[in-house]
Amino acid sequence: MSSAQQVRPGRFITLEGIDGAGKSTHLTFIADWLKRHDVDAVFTREPGGTPLGEQIRELLLAPATVASLDAETLLAFAARQQHIADVIAPALAAGRWLVSDRFTDSTYAFQGGGRGVPYERIRALEDWVQRGLQPDLTLLFDLPTEVAAGRMAGTRVPDRFEQEAADFHRRVRAAYLRRAEEASQRIVVLDAGRSIDDIQADIAVHLGKLLERG
Amino acid sequence: MSSAQQVRPGRFITLEGIDGAGKSTHLTFIADWLKRHDVDAVFTREPGGTPLGEQIRELLLAPATVASLDAETLLAFAARQQHIADVIAPALAAGRWLVSDRFTDSTYAFQGGGRGVPYERIRALEDWVQRGLQPDLTLLFDLPTEVAAGRMAGTRVPDRFEQEAADFHRRVRAAYLRRAEEASQRIVVLDAGRSIDDIQADIAVHLGKLLERG
Repeated sequence: MSSAQQVRPGRFITLEGIDGAGKSTHLTFIADWLKRHDVDAVFTREPGGTPLGEQIRELLLAPATVASLDAETLLAFAARQQHIADVIAPALAAGRWLVSDRFTDSTYAFQGGGRGVPYERIRALEDWVQRGLQPDLTLLFDLPTEVAAGRMAGTRVPDRFEQEAADFHRRVRAAYLRRAEEASQRIVVLDAGRSIDDIQADIAVHLGKLLERG
Repeated sequence: MSSAQQVRPGRFITLEGIDGAGKSTHLTFIADWLKRHDVDAVFTREPGGTPLGEQIRELLLAPATVASLDAETLLAFAARQQHIADVIAPALAAGRWLVSDRFTDSTYAFQGGGRGVPYERIRALEDWVQRGLQPDLTLLFDLPTEVAAGRMAGTRVPDRFEQEAADFHRRVRAAYLRRAEEASQRIVVLDAGRSIDDIQADIAVHLGKLLERG
């Protein structure tokens, strides 16, 4: 079989981290890197990624909507199911790379660590929806909570809401780091407090490894 | 403890069956019967039952919505989760009776039997959402598919769509009857082809038993 006939298998990359950790900046870098290496890639995001996902997102954001945390978690996985069916699985099946800004680790971090849905309940839905599908590489942009809180509050003493937000982000970060330990074969923790050049040098190393993988 | 201080425990009743099996008529009878027996009852239905449930229902009915069968099943359970949290559990906790026009057996029948979602996948979501909560009594209004098809098509030879509808209803009915075997301690199969008086005499017997139960 000639190499022209071989379909290079698709790769599934996810980006994770709290807002403000620089995901958007690094997404642009990743897109450029893949282009320079002739990789045919699809870019997507959660929540959203499909019309149904956007409708669910709008539903959850509407001020009049009353949804329990469990119902919200089910809705997130309904959107994810559609995202996999319509976007992720077809791209991977066609041998393309798929880069998603957030995926299931976000549910563990925000609904799980941040808001208290037990991990095993998230895992049950993950198994139901993903049927074993997992990213090949997850870049977790990690920022110490104090840095994020400092950026947020400036030099003032944090007020009650800022304090609550800091506590929330501390739980989210801890959940992300726990995920990174549990799935260390795919999740790479990147210190997002460093210079952009340093971070992107790391990203390039990990993308390169993924490209070389058979 | 005087009897005035005792909270009579709530009872959870569900009505099931294909459309046209007479659920609405019998709901009125059940409401009257409970009133005559001084039972404080709440009436609700699925899909729907809460604002979130109605929003999800509208989403699924919108012609522009594209949802996979799996995503639809997750959305149904998201609505059910909210229904339990806001309506069913509070009523039962307050010692009231709760009568729901359709509940999870409908998912087994329509999404499972009718459309092919594997039973064990429905059961996984049932366990996730209900955490062991089950109706005390389910009245399954059963109608031979031939009777339903005959009512639908009159004396004409059924066309292709009517034939498909008949096949679908046959699978739904079979799934309902399978549920009735699996959960025979709570599901009562009522032959809905009989006279209304005969059916309602049966219903009264089962309601009476439920009322007498300690």
